Amino acid sequence: VAELVAQLAQTAVARDQSGGHAASEREAIRRSGLLSLSIPEQYGGQGAGWSEVLGIVRCLAEVDSALAHVFGFHHLQLAGVLLHGGVAQHERFLIPTARDGLFWGNALNPLDQRVIGEQEDDGYRIYGVKSFSSGSVGSDFLTVSAWHRSSGTALSAAVPTARAGVTVNPDWDAFGQRQTDSGTVRFDNVRIEADDVLQRPGGVATPRATLRSQIAQLVMTNLYLGIAQGALSQARHYLQTEAKPWFDAGVSEAAEDPYVQEQFGEFSLKIRAAQVLADLAGAALDAALEQGDALTAQQRGELAVSGAQAKVLSHRAALDVASAIFEITGARSTAARFGFDRFWRNARVHTLHDPVIYKVRDLGRHAIDGRLPDPTAYS
Amino acid sequence: VAELVAQLAQTAVARDQSGGHAASEREAIRRSGLLSLSIPEQYGGQGAGWSEVLGIVRCLAEVDSALAHVFGFHHLQLAGVLLHGGVAQHERFLIPTARDGLFWGNALNPLDQRVIGEQEDDGYRIYGVKSFSSGSVGSDFLTVSAWHRSSGTALSAAVPTARAGVTVNPDWDAFGQRQTDSGTVRFDNVRIEADDVLQRPGGVATPRATLRSQIAQLVMTNLYLGIAQGALSQARHYLQTEAKPWFDAGVSEAAEDPYVQEQFGEFSLKIRAAQVLADLAGAALDAALEQGDALTAQQRGELAVSGAQAKVLSHRAALDVASAIFEITGARSTAARFGFDRFWRNARVHTLHDPVIYKVRDLGRHAIDGRLPDPTAYS
Amino acid sequence: VAELVAQLAQTAVARDQSGGHAASEREAIRRSGLLSLSIPEQYGGQGAGWSEVLGIVRCLAEVDSALAHVFGFHHLQLAGVLLHGGVAQHERFLIPTARDGLFWGNALNPLDQRVIGEQEDDGYRIYGVKSFSSGSVGSDFLTVSAWHRSSGTALSAAVPTARAGVTVNPDWDAFGQRQTDSGTVRFDNVRIEADDVLQRPGGVATPRATLRSQIAQLVMTNLYLGIAQGALSQARHYLQTEAKPWFDAGVSEAAEDPYVQEQFGEFSLKIRAAQVLADLAGAALDAALEQGDALTAQQRGELAVSGAQAKVLSHRAALDVASAIFEITGARSTAARFGFDRFWRNARVHTLHDPVIYKVRDLGRHAIDGRLPDPTAYS
Amino acid sequence: VAELVAQLAQTAVARDQSGGHAASEREAIRRSGLLSLSIPEQYGGQGAGWSEVLGIVRCLAEVDSALAHVFGFHHLQLAGVLLHGGVAQHERFLIPTARDGLFWGNALNPLDQRVIGEQEDDGYRIYGVKSFSSGSVGSDFLTVSAWHRSSGTALSAAVPTARAGVTVNPDWDAFGQRQTDSGTVRFDNVRIEADDVLQRPGGVATPRATLRSQIAQLVMTNLYLGIAQGALSQARHYLQTEAKPWFDAGVSEAAEDPYVQEQFGEFSLKIRAAQVLADLAGAALDAALEQGDALTAQQRGELAVSGAQAKVLSHRAALDVASAIFEITGARSTAARFGFDRFWRNARVHTLHDPVIYKVRDLGRHAIDGRLPDPTAYS
Repeated sequence: VAELVAQLAQTAVARDQSGGHAASEREAIRRSGLLSLSIPEQYGGQGAGWSEVLGIVRCLAEVDSALAHVFGFHHLQLAGVLLHGGVAQHERFLIPTARDGLFWGNALNPLDQRVIGEQEDDGYRIYGVKSFSSGSVGSDFLTVSAWHRSSGTALSAAVPTARAGVTVNPDWDAFGQRQTDSGTVRFDNVRIEADDVLQRPGGVATPRATLRSQIAQLVMTNLYLGIAQGALSQARHYLQTEAKPWFDAGVSEAAEDPYVQEQFGEFSLKIRAAQVLADLAGAALDAALEQGDALTAQQRGELAVSGAQAKVLSHRAALDVASAIFEITGARSTAARFGFDRFWRNARVHTLHDPVIYKVRDLGRHAIDGRLPDPTAYS
Repeated sequence: VAELVAQLAQTAVARDQSGGHAASEREAIRRSGLLSLSIPEQYGGQGAGWSEVLGIVRCLAEVDSALAHVFGFHHLQLAGVLLHGGVAQHERFLIPTARDGLFWGNALNPLDQRVIGEQEDDGYRIYGVKSFSSGSVGSDFLTVSAWHRSSGTALSAAVPTARAGVTVNPDWDAFGQRQTDSGTVRFDNVRIEADDVLQRPGGVATPRATLRSQIAQLVMTNLYLGIAQGALSQARHYLQTEAKPWFDAGVSEAAEDPYVQEQFGEFSLKIRAAQVLADLAGAALDAALEQGDALTAQQRGELAVSGAQAKVLSHRAALDVASAIFEITGARSTAARFGFDRFWRNARVHTLHDPVIYKVRDLGRHAIDGRLPDPTAYS
Repeated sequence: VAELVAQLAQTAVARDQSGGHAASEREAIRRSGLLSLSIPEQYGGQGAGWSEVLGIVRCLAEVDSALAHVFGFHHLQLAGVLLHGGVAQHERFLIPTARDGLFWGNALNPLDQRVIGEQEDDGYRIYGVKSFSSGSVGSDFLTVSAWHRSSGTALSAAVPTARAGVTVNPDWDAFGQRQTDSGTVRFDNVRIEADDVLQRPGGVATPRATLRSQIAQLVMTNLYLGIAQGALSQARHYLQTEAKPWFDAGVSEAAEDPYVQEQFGEFSLKIRAAQVLADLAGAALDAALEQGDALTAQQRGELAVSGAQAKVLSHRAALDVASAIFEITGARSTAARFGFDRFWRNARVHTLHDPVIYKVRDLGRHAIDGRLPDPTAYS
Repeated sequence: VAELVAQLAQTAVARDQSGGHAASEREAIRRSGLLSLSIPEQYGGQGAGWSEVLGIVRCLAEVDSALAHVFGFHHLQLAGVLLHGGVAQHERFLIPTARDGLFWGNALNPLDQRVIGEQEDDGYRIYGVKSFSSGSVGSDFLTVSAWHRSSGTALSAAVPTARAGVTVNPDWDAFGQRQTDSGTVRFDNVRIEADDVLQRPGGVATPRATLRSQIAQLVMTNLYLGIAQGALSQARHYLQTEAKPWFDAGVSEAAEDPYVQEQFGEFSLKIRAAQVLADLAGAALDAALEQGDALTAQQRGELAVSGAQAKVLSHRAALDVASAIFEITGARSTAARFGFDRFWRNARVHTLHDPVIYKVRDLGRHAIDGRLPDPTAYS
């Protein structure tokens, strides 16, 4: 991991500016073997717990939160296969993924109901477009959701990106997280076979099945934390190597300015509190996954509360620290070659996945009378 | 503990208003056996770790933070005897304390150098007054510090409160923490025998010996947390039993107001982050104490960082929640009979023990280059 | 005014602690002639604009926010007579008030519908109790509202406090604003004559008639500001005369501590912003009153926006500064004799008149599309 | 102005992305006649007060804060000529500026002492480089400062950009304010004639002469405000035309979400408070300039306090609103074509001119004992 981090760091500023598809960096991830990290050993993977995966997301995001997202969402798709698929599907999808180092992308955005699924024999035919499809560009497999009109619910499936009728349009053009390969995927009457289907429409999800959204939330949480840590780390380095004390501060080193010390203290508090809560939520996720089908709605809900606590504080730590470090590093640190603005831009784009205020609301409901967050694609 | 909490809760509002010495509540604590909690088993105590003591401080402070302070500072004095005294002193002081349920008070305020100690044979003679002496009223023993002019340092000792020349003046008159028995103690040429002395002037403290201030800080941290939890708990109860929705909120229950839910969410986040950091610091304290004399300055410093993180967030949680709950509970909740203002008053008085901004500064210094807090009576 | 302020200041701490009715201080206000300040000159008053009245509320509240409230709400009742009554009522009520220095109290709390009014000839008969009746104890006249069931609206009237059937119960027992004489008034079938009636039930209020709630809001706004200013003033004085620098601050005067300076800077910013907005709202109120019946709903709404801006910032300034000054003044400043906690207690109790978050909401609605606050008793 | 704003707005997003020199937009400003706005009528200008200039800075900055800076700093240089030059210089520099629509740039950065001035006859010879020279690219005249070693002070002068030895290097490469033409200017033994000199080294500045830094601060203040207003305006427009309500909000329009309304309320409060303080500071600047040489140090200091209040709140409003609007506008609004991130990037770069915390400190010193900010290039 350290080697991969070092490699990503070398070009992160330049790649942030160019945007587009990070082909060679994705190859580096592939070569690192980390694509099989969360795959159970019986399918040829490394059988790591999610805490470990999340720790690596955090670590990668310190230097490159776009590729950290590609990495994290790859594993999220695998988790979907494990949670929603049967054993035959586990074998069929995970064994080649581990063996050949395949990348999975996300075409599941559940608020986007423009992909329609219609029953056809024992499978489905799907058509329409799905935006915000993270990691779809350059992927080998996609997890996709399609709206099933007659039941008013969605189905989900795993399909090879190369399947006939699937077109990935690399049109992601946000001001941050620029290399997440979050293209738009068009499905032109794509055939979904019965054994591609992970979730049929109208089914009732068990508590365990709803863990997927909790994993997604924790991938983001740790990604935000990594951004915050990366911003702080760059500010610390700049302070020690480049910053000059303010002429009126009465100190000989910028690091001795009492206001600089105070601000670093505040940064570290924001980050530390979020880290600790994220670690607890990660451990709670591991425990919930170990429960398997015995997981109760109460246990699942408590995990969601723990995750929401970590998410809100990580969200705020990332945005606040990424914006405020400049008060320390000053005007010269805004030169484009440093690329310090990418922390804020990346945090700002990614923290909009779902509105943080509704996480605060969910925490409030829980604090009032123990009400647990409703299991949704976002909570 | 639960029984004690229930008993203290019954009269907490009334006793906050009357102030003064809570004789019968102190008797209840004595009867509970909790005075020997932190005393090692070989001296007749219960041998509990500090994490457990701190948990009880937090719990008592939910309903009565003044007596939680008396309780916590009693054990802090015992910790001083253990950390600074020899085995003979441990036996001499702790065995009767455990056996007879004796109370210890604090006369150690180190910024107050008005008590002077002068050498006399192998002991000392001390004179002068010491304010902010928590738990001194009604105590059986005191830990006292005296300024030793010739060395420019202080000595500390344990003395029976009944010793000739010791006068406790119950003059504590703050607007909060009104029953902490924090009187002024006058010492009129009080004889300190050689075997009363815990720390002689001019000595160099080992990392272990400096743990006392960390224990003191964590007692306060957990006390603040208890206040925050108590305020939230009262607000929750009031919300569910008394509060009416605002006429313009468009909801039938106050608890369904989206702004009420948001505010509870913020309260719970502040408290949760502080709790988790306080729990970690408590565990770090247990680990540091187990190290004994092998404790390094680095380990001691890392405990101080962990403690400072918990202290700052607990300080803020207590003040913020204690003031903001009224936005939820509304005008009618300000009736004196509820006593809801005592949470803010208690938090406000107690959080002034040492300036929180200097804790933030210490955290900033650590975040910049790993610098550890200087071991002082406050850090 | 300066003389009155000085007189109130002398005993403010003691009277805050005793609570109850401030008979001699009310006499001092009466003697000062300020009770006729807002009464037009043709009725024997001084014809001052509301900006001036509000300035005096702010000034009195620096030292005694309870009596500032009694003073401000006295004039609010007079404004109600002027806005809602006819010329004959102006003469009948205002001439004796100016001539004899009469006090008016408030029994109008509109969310409390327990006082019922039933038509009787051309007048009404009213019965029931009204709580939160500011200034009712010791008043000569009351403005009262009564719920008129058949129309589902309220009527309002002016009645002498001495009228048969009116009983004022001095039961106000909040932890702050302790001398506002906000008792509970019981009406036992009190006769309301036709010429006592200010607003008949079911009427449609003109924009001008709805100005009363804006006046009430601005009385509170300026009262909060006075509390904030008073707290800052006391902190400044204590800092310069009593405070010692923190031992680790490296400065010889507390006022030279960079963190103390920073915190004073923040206090002054909060207060200054609120002051400027309150001054603008006061001027806007004067302008609106000068418009008379020509006042449009748009103009009235813009005044409400201006007032809401001032109110929110004053609310926050009062609470924040009143709580945070202690970070500067420290532990010794919590002695009851200073009475510094009364600023927070007074601010906390009074700022609960109506929930500030709904003012923020109203400002948000206006910022989004220019929507004006609905004219209610609170906006 | 409105026409100019509309023209700048059309291409602002594209020009932010390309960066570089906005030649045709500078021509548009030239054609608008606004370059002579602050020039007294006797020199062919429009004689506008600074309040008016600042209002236009604010207005331009809503859509294009880079060109607003070029515009504002052009007038700042003219103010320097007026404040520091004699009547002959006023005529020599201002008449052609007004007549021919000449642009002035800034080469005055006083913390950068790499440009050295050495006396030569009755003039000077200057050499070295000056970075952060706003508006230097494409300028007709420059105001330049040079360090005079023997006196340990600086001299300042006005020189045509075309003078021999002056080279402007368009190397500005920050992540925001990308078209401010803030190049590096190299001076290769540039001759400064006696009548070019505005301030000789070692002189004692009158209060009036020190107004230049106050003007500079207010240009920035109004620029920040414009950014905040622009961000809010875009968010409002997006909310009304593009935003969808959150699926769990229970409302049919995003603008009806209570949390959206709350957040807009907070935005409007931040901006409104800053606006009002900026307006007051602008009026105070006009009054100070009208005082001429009669301006006292006290009056100058009070202006500095007023300006600092406005600057701190504008700084915070710009950064906070520019970052937080995305909580309202959501993920789709991060598409590069909207360019909404430029508000934060522009605010972040420009607010680093001098550290805002030292403005807060200055306000604190003033709040404590009336101490006025020291007149410097930044206060």
